[in-house]
Amino acid sequence: MDAYPALSTTPRRLLMGPGPSNVHPRVLAAMATPLVGHLDPAFLEIMNRTRDLLRFVFQTENELTLPIAGTGSAGMEAALCNLLEEGDEILIAVNGYFGDRLSEMAVRCRARLRRLEVPWGEVFRPEQVEEALREHPPKVLAMVHAETSTGALQPVEEMVQLAHAHGALFLLDTVTSLGGVPVEVDRWGVDACYSGTQKCLSCPPGLAPITFSTAAREALRNRRASVQSWYLDLGLIQQYWGQERIYHHTAPISMNYALYEALRLIHEEGLAARFARHQLNAEALWAGLEAMGLELFVPLEYRLPTLNTVRIPEGVSDARVRGRLLNEHGIEIGGGLGELKGRIWRIGLMGYSSSGENVLQFLAALERVLRAEGLRLLPGAGARAAADVLERGAAS
Amino acid sequence: MDAYPALSTTPRRLLMGPGPSNVHPRVLAAMATPLVGHLDPAFLEIMNRTRDLLRFVFQTENELTLPIAGTGSAGMEAALCNLLEEGDEILIAVNGYFGDRLSEMAVRCRARLRRLEVPWGEVFRPEQVEEALREHPPKVLAMVHAETSTGALQPVEEMVQLAHAHGALFLLDTVTSLGGVPVEVDRWGVDACYSGTQKCLSCPPGLAPITFSTAAREALRNRRASVQSWYLDLGLIQQYWGQERIYHHTAPISMNYALYEALRLIHEEGLAARFARHQLNAEALWAGLEAMGLELFVPLEYRLPTLNTVRIPEGVSDARVRGRLLNEHGIEIGGGLGELKGRIWRIGLMGYSSSGENVLQFLAALERVLRAEGLRLLPGAGARAAADVLERGAAS
Repeated sequence: MDAYPALSTTPRRLLMGPGPSNVHPRVLAAMATPLVGHLDPAFLEIMNRTRDLLRFVFQTENELTLPIAGTGSAGMEAALCNLLEEGDEILIAVNGYFGDRLSEMAVRCRARLRRLEVPWGEVFRPEQVEEALREHPPKVLAMVHAETSTGALQPVEEMVQLAHAHGALFLLDTVTSLGGVPVEVDRWGVDACYSGTQKCLSCPPGLAPITFSTAAREALRNRRASVQSWYLDLGLIQQYWGQERIYHHTAPISMNYALYEALRLIHEEGLAARFARHQLNAEALWAGLEAMGLELFVPLEYRLPTLNTVRIPEGVSDARVRGRLLNEHGIEIGGGLGELKGRIWRIGLMGYSSSGENVLQFLAALERVLRAEGLRLLPGAGARAAADVLERGAAS
Repeated sequence: MDAYPALSTTPRRLLMGPGPSNVHPRVLAAMATPLVGHLDPAFLEIMNRTRDLLRFVFQTENELTLPIAGTGSAGMEAALCNLLEEGDEILIAVNGYFGDRLSEMAVRCRARLRRLEVPWGEVFRPEQVEEALREHPPKVLAMVHAETSTGALQPVEEMVQLAHAHGALFLLDTVTSLGGVPVEVDRWGVDACYSGTQKCLSCPPGLAPITFSTAAREALRNRRASVQSWYLDLGLIQQYWGQERIYHHTAPISMNYALYEALRLIHEEGLAARFARHQLNAEALWAGLEAMGLELFVPLEYRLPTLNTVRIPEGVSDARVRGRLLNEHGIEIGGGLGELKGRIWRIGLMGYSSSGENVLQFLAALERVLRAEGLRLLPGAGARAAADVLERGAAS
C-alpha cells in the first residue's frame, strides 16, 4: 500500500456542516492559477480589486479593509489585539462558543474583561446591554453577529448606537453571516468587523477579511504600546495593502486568488439575491425538519439561515447519525460545540452549499438514516414540505 | 472594461525572486481538489501523512511537528511567543533583515532582548557566540539559517552545542533553507525550527511548518502564563494535530492539500538528490554571473545555493533592470532589503524553480537587459559558463 497516496483518492463530500462549505468550481480553478510574486504589479492589481469587493460585501467605504493571512480566528485575534492594550476594558456579550473564544483572546491581550451572558441559543436585548454599558463604559463592546455554535442571529444596529452613546467602539464577529445575511458595516456604524472565507463566502478556509472604521483606526494610531502580534499588526499590514506597498509578510497568493474569484461570484449574483437565496433555502430546510417531527433549536424571530440548529431526537445517537450521513451519503453536518455537544446538530447552508437541491438531498438522507436508527417517520414528508417552500419561493 | 477581470488574465512568470518560487503543476492541481471538512476522517489521514512528511524534511522524530496556519512570519512568531514570556532573555544573532524581524517580534513578546551582530552578508563564528552566551546565558539563542536578505548560510551544528552547554534552547529560522539545503533538526539538536511553504518546498505561501524538540515542549509546558497569541498557541494547535483531535481553528484545507502534494514530490525526489540539484544549479548560476563580470555578494565558503545575491554593477538602475526582466522576459528577481536596497539583486533557485533551464534562461535575459542598459558584455559568456557547470554536474 502506498504510504502517501495521491489526493485524487479524497472522497467527495456535500459540506453542510458549520464550515468549510462547498467551494464553487470557479474558485477551485482559481486556486490552480500559476503564481506571480507578492509584489508583482499584476498581484497588486488583484489586491486592489479584492479590497474593492470586500468593501462591497461588508457594505463599507472603510479604507482599512483587507484579508488577514489566517483563518477566521486570526481575524478575531487581529481585531482584538489591535484595539486592546494592557488594562483596556472590553465588554463581551457571550451567548455561545465564539463569545467564549473572544473572551479568552481578550484576556491574552491583557485587557480587563467583563462578560455579559444569556443562555446559549438566545440573543441580547438592548436594555441588558445598555445597563452593562452604563455601569461601566468599556473601550470596546464586542458581539457575535451569527453564533456558529447555536444558530442565533443577533440584531446589531441598536447595539452599535448604545455602544457609541457610551463612548465605546463596537466590534462584530461576522464569520458565519458575511455574504449570507445582511452585514451593513457603515449604515450600522460597526467599528471593527471580521469574518472567515470558508463560510458564506464559499472560499476555502485560510483568510479572514477584516474592516476598521475611522474611529477604530484612530484608536489604533493612539495606542501607547505596539500591537503584541507583529504578524497581525494592522498598521503594518495596511502599509502593504495600501498605497505604500511596503513588504510585511509574503501574502498567501493562491488563497487571495480564491478569495478574489469567490467575491467576483458574489458580485455577479448581487447581495440582495444572495441573501434571499440563503433565506429561502433555510426556510425550506426548517419546514422539512419540522415536517419530520424534529424541533429547531432557535426561535424563528432570531433564527440564522446560514447555520441551522436542530435538537437531536431522544434516544438517537449523535455520532452514529453523523457517521452514517458522512459514510453512507457523503454528507457532512456538524455536532454541537461545548455545552450543546450531543444535544443539537448544526446544518450549514452557506454560499455554494445553499441550494434547494442540497436541502432536498440532505432531508432524504437524514430520513433514511433516522429510519434505519429506528425512528418512525412518514416517508417523504420532510422533502415534500421543503419542496413546497422552494416552489412558492421560485414563484414569488 | 471589466472592473473585475478573470484570473486567467494573470501573466505567467518565472519566479526567481526570494519567494514565492514556482509551484509544480501537481501542487497547483492539488489546490483545486474539492474540499472535505477539517474534522473529516479523510482529512485527519492527510494531516497524519503531512506530519510524517514534515518530519522527513526536518529530519526529526519530534512529536510536535505541524504546519502553522499562516505564512513564514507566523511560524517565526509562533516559535517566539510559545517559548518566550515576559522578562525571559533571548539572544538573537542578527546578520540581516530577518534577524531584525526576530528581534522586533521578541520585544513584542515582552522578552529581554540581546542582539549579537555582524555585518549583513557575514555569518557568526562560534567564538563570538560563546562569548555572548558566557556573558549572560539566555533562555533562548535564536539564529537564521539562511538569511533571505543576504544569501548567507550560517553553519549551525556547533552553535547548538554552545547554546546547550550554556543551558539555552536553540531556535532556528529555516524559511529559505528547508527542502533546499540540509536541515538536520535531530542530529544538530535544534529545539525550535520553523519554515515557510513558498520557498524551497515550492508550495504556495500560506503555511509555516514548525517543529519543537522535547526540551522546547517542556519549556512550553512550564510556562507561568498563557501564550499571548491564542491563534498561535502550540499547546492548543497540537491538540488538534495530535491524538485528541480537539477543534482549535478551521484548518486551511486547500493549503494543506498543497503542502501534502509538495512534500510527496520531495519524498519522491529524495533529500540528497534535491540538495544536490539545488547546489549544482546555484553553482551554474554563480559561474554564469561571474563570467558576465558580476560580483557575488557572499564569499563562497558560506554562500547559500537557494537565494543568490549579486552586486548591482555601478551605473546600472536597479529598478529598471528588474522591471525589464519582469516585463520583457517574464522573470521575477528580488531587489535588496533594508540596507542592501539598491546594492544587490536576489536571485532565488528554490524548489521547482531550481532547474538548469531556468538558470540559462535567466542568464540570457539578464545579458540582454544589461546590454540594453549600456553594459559591454561578451555575448553568451554567462550562459556558456553555466552550461559547462551543468554538463560537468550531469556527467558526475
